[in-house]
Amino acid sequence: MKLEEQKISQKILYEGKVITVLLCDAKLPNGHVALREVVHHSGGAAVLLVHDGKVLLERQFRFPYDKVIWEIPAGKLNKGEEPVAAAMRELEEETGFRTAELRHLVDIYPSPGYTDEVIYIYLAEDAESVGVRLDDDEFINAQFVELAEAERMIERGEINDAKTVAAIYKYLYSKKA
Amino acid sequence: MKLEEQKISQKILYEGKVITVLLCDAKLPNGHVALREVVHHSGGAAVLLVHDGKVLLERQFRFPYDKVIWEIPAGKLNKGEEPVAAAMRELEEETGFRTAELRHLVDIYPSPGYTDEVIYIYLAEDAESVGVRLDDDEFINAQFVELAEAERMIERGEINDAKTVAAIYKYLYSKKA
Repeated sequence: MKLEEQKISQKILYEGKVITVLLCDAKLPNGHVALREVVHHSGGAAVLLVHDGKVLLERQFRFPYDKVIWEIPAGKLNKGEEPVAAAMRELEEETGFRTAELRHLVDIYPSPGYTDEVIYIYLAEDAESVGVRLDDDEFINAQFVELAEAERMIERGEINDAKTVAAIYKYLYSKKA
Repeated sequence: MKLEEQKISQKILYEGKVITVLLCDAKLPNGHVALREVVHHSGGAAVLLVHDGKVLLERQFRFPYDKVIWEIPAGKLNKGEEPVAAAMRELEEETGFRTAELRHLVDIYPSPGYTDEVIYIYLAEDAESVGVRLDDDEFINAQFVELAEAERMIERGEINDAKTVAAIYKYLYSKKA
């Protein structure tokens, strides 16, 4: 079965600080034309920092869910920034930890039906504390949680963030395998 | 540290078929006001179908990435539809497999910085083929892949979909634990 679609036209509906919203017409494999709503995002970088059987987790208010949630440290790529550089920068800014080495863990597409975001996830197993440098308008609490407890928090539905769930289970599985 | 933000105002920028885009003003913990761009989505339901050491994967063109990607069967919740019902419906429509029992695996927040989507993921370990019923404008290939091969596809960067990565590693870890 032919699966590919072709872009016929594109209109920028909104250009914001985090997202750009595009409305596109796409030609389907059967020749029909369908509307495709696309949220463009510059990409994110995240770090699973594991130290002494514990993982560094942040508590951060996330407006779309109107609540504080648990996540691994992460942030948006600056224009032209390499994902690994963004991951190191965000780790240090948000948590005060600096690492000399990041290993690639996995890249994820958060919701491919409408967003083009890629979240690049790295693993750090060695880091030193150099002091937090949060932006004026950033409010984040970071703390170490035992890996086994983090896994139970996912089981209990207390951790839902996709990059965090993917990173923790990929890491746990790699240690078991 | 106080983390909570308060919504001050909300404007609907766009109401589409998959997403609604909202622009909101939020009062931060320090009293500052910041713009929050929110993509509202009705939620998704997905099924990890495992049979005889194989997992059912789909190949589907995803317009935002301009390519065909691998995913577990999934779809958008209809208005008022229970996630588990949506999961059963999408599994049968897209792959032709019907299952009597779905077990809850994990719920994920794909990208909490801007979207309020929740993806509800279920596990099916027993299913029978009843024939595919794709919509006219749906183009999806489904096939069984050995779990070990699916894991290698993630390692090689050939599977990136967040729900698929989270589901496969959570399942693999549960079998190892």
